[in-house]
Amino acid sequence: MPVLVMKFGGTSVANLDRIRRAAKRVGVEVAKGYDVIVIVSAMSGKTNELVGWVGETSPLYDAREYDAVVSSGENVTAGLMALTLQEMEIPARSWQGWQVPVRTTSAHSAARIEEIPSENIMAKFAQGMRVAVVAGFQGVSPEGRITTLGRGGSDTTAVAFAAAFHAERCDIYTDVDGVYTTDPRIASKARKLDRIAFEEMLELASLGAKVLQTRSVELAMRYNVKLRVLSSFEEQSDDAGTLVCAEEEIMESNVVTGIAYSRDEAKMTLLSVADRPGIAAAIFGPLSDAGVNVDMIIQNISEDGRTDMTFSCPTDQVMRAEKALKDAVAAGQIEYQDLVADTDVAKVSAVGIGMRSQSGVAAQMFKTLSDEGINIKVIATSEIKISVLIDRKYMELAVQALHDAFKLEKAG
Amino acid sequence: MPVLVMKFGGTSVANLDRIRRAAKRVGVEVAKGYDVIVIVSAMSGKTNELVGWVGETSPLYDAREYDAVVSSGENVTAGLMALTLQEMEIPARSWQGWQVPVRTTSAHSAARIEEIPSENIMAKFAQGMRVAVVAGFQGVSPEGRITTLGRGGSDTTAVAFAAAFHAERCDIYTDVDGVYTTDPRIASKARKLDRIAFEEMLELASLGAKVLQTRSVELAMRYNVKLRVLSSFEEQSDDAGTLVCAEEEIMESNVVTGIAYSRDEAKMTLLSVADRPGIAAAIFGPLSDAGVNVDMIIQNISEDGRTDMTFSCPTDQVMRAEKALKDAVAAGQIEYQDLVADTDVAKVSAVGIGMRSQSGVAAQMFKTLSDEGINIKVIATSEIKISVLIDRKYMELAVQALHDAFKLEKAG
Repeated sequence: MPVLVMKFGGTSVANLDRIRRAAKRVGVEVAKGYDVIVIVSAMSGKTNELVGWVGETSPLYDAREYDAVVSSGENVTAGLMALTLQEMEIPARSWQGWQVPVRTTSAHSAARIEEIPSENIMAKFAQGMRVAVVAGFQGVSPEGRITTLGRGGSDTTAVAFAAAFHAERCDIYTDVDGVYTTDPRIASKARKLDRIAFEEMLELASLGAKVLQTRSVELAMRYNVKLRVLSSFEEQSDDAGTLVCAEEEIMESNVVTGIAYSRDEAKMTLLSVADRPGIAAAIFGPLSDAGVNVDMIIQNISEDGRTDMTFSCPTDQVMRAEKALKDAVAAGQIEYQDLVADTDVAKVSAVGIGMRSQSGVAAQMFKTLSDEGINIKVIATSEIKISVLIDRKYMELAVQALHDAFKLEKAG
Repeated sequence: MPVLVMKFGGTSVANLDRIRRAAKRVGVEVAKGYDVIVIVSAMSGKTNELVGWVGETSPLYDAREYDAVVSSGENVTAGLMALTLQEMEIPARSWQGWQVPVRTTSAHSAARIEEIPSENIMAKFAQGMRVAVVAGFQGVSPEGRITTLGRGGSDTTAVAFAAAFHAERCDIYTDVDGVYTTDPRIASKARKLDRIAFEEMLELASLGAKVLQTRSVELAMRYNVKLRVLSSFEEQSDDAGTLVCAEEEIMESNVVTGIAYSRDEAKMTLLSVADRPGIAAAIFGPLSDAGVNVDMIIQNISEDGRTDMTFSCPTDQVMRAEKALKDAVAAGQIEYQDLVADTDVAKVSAVGIGMRSQSGVAAQMFKTLSDEGINIKVIATSEIKISVLIDRKYMELAVQALHDAFKLEKAG
């Protein structure tokens, strides 16, 4: 029988009633003939409680013990879900990570899945079991200790199981009903997308982060797992939610798929840097070593052997960036006239795989912003994304104007 | 280095403060040079919460899933205890049952420990680890599923580890400071015992049940594990609490060690039973089949081929006993004139290994009760115990009078 993976997040299993509701959704798929692998998170709030206890006990905790403690929430949900399914007369049992086993690296609290043997669970399916309930977010290291995959790791567990079991689809049940063209709280015309390409989903991280863990999307792209995001709080049809899939499977022809934004960007400018070969490496090497996530970079045209260098990074890393750069000056690695930080900026991006084949998107984006009187401070482009840094006070206006300009309220 | 096992029950690890207090006790033993195995229960209340969720989800639950859910509480405490010890700079790590592994039978929710390999933990001790924190109450079945040992099972885990690691002693930290000559709430002169023999501890179950799980005492007796019961809420000296040990190690010479009682006993009498060979089997066979725990039995002298048969059983099993006996009558297996149940009785017992070598204990017990005007309804004796059934209203008086008569307020 074909295998389906269904993942339920913390709010979807927050209490016994919600676990029952989720189990009913599983029952619908079982009735259609699927053997189902259900991946569960901890009941919402439980993981935070456990994390709090660990932090209070030991501020610089041993990550191996952290993992042993924090993974327990998923075990509870897995057992309760299996019992609920059994009550519905659906043959089911629970698996903890080490029982499958979900083999991971030893990088505790941020482990990566290396292998999921399918024999054990497939043998049970062959014997008539219809649902394997697996505790998400956890695995076991080569040393036999419990590992966790990092926050949101249950999405990654779900995609990894879908890949290992060649599942027809991986359905991620959450508290939103799909991926939108932009944030509906900012643009009321935002429209739910029926389909979105893996690459677009990754670029829309600022919208998508609340919906899907980035690593799970990367994994789905690598193994071409069809990933569906849908709400566990609504009655579902077969085409509910948003399908995240390979671009070949997308029929819509909008050039731009969505408008993303990020409030917590800062713009930093090094004025009058001596322009010489290797200067970029001399600046960005120390920033990288200090753990600063540099996003956009622009270098002005050089004059008299000197130039201005501008980059963006998250607002809460500005102090760290300043220290790294001042240390580099003190070490004689770089020199500049002044360092200016502007923390009143925001990033707005237009994303769409259609950009690859169609020109004029950048021009239309700049004209739209210009018509609204919004000054562009930095521009960065990739194959399927154009990002601009603007004054933060114009962010909502920019998102709305671009959503209108690219006609995102209408399906392509 | 010598190994010590220390077990902390749910009230002793109820919150982070209490875990810290328990960890300090562990630190004292580590400083003395012991390698310590700490067995922890779930934080008090957690197991009941989990059991409640399972019962609400599935009244006739799959015991395998019950075990998977209910065992999670101990895992949390084990990790937190290991982190707390690490904060005190004591090398420590946690083990879950399957990691040791604690190999048990497949009798889920009532599994028995079959084997505890010591190599894994001993190797870590050899490498400098000083404390192995093990989640109590749980193990793993031959099928690789999680098992639990039944309520109070952490005591049994502790004794089993003490046996497997040839520990010098097994200290059970709880919320009472030891085993008393009788219940201090009934007899204010009750005295804490410094030592008590395994056999006495088993017979004093009505006192001891709140202190130690019976199976753990049986296991300690079989492997001659020195078991100490002491309070985790008091400053401790080396001779604190009560040592449960082999009788050879007991120097005290009191003939009677303690007075036990049970309120929930009922007396049932079958009047005018036809006295023939096999009649006892015909009566007690069906009672046993019905799950009635018959305790004391007396048969009156036969007259004209008929006799009265009296037995005691827990009060809440009276209806079940009546039904079993009436069914046996209907099936033609037995016949009697009348069945009389007296639920207003209590059992009082004098227990002591000294009875084996000293006569006159029974006579003194009967005289003491007679002097107080208390009528004895049923008598039963074993090698180290004399029990009587009396009217419940005299129970406290009987306990106090016997405690005085056998001079239990003074050490022997």
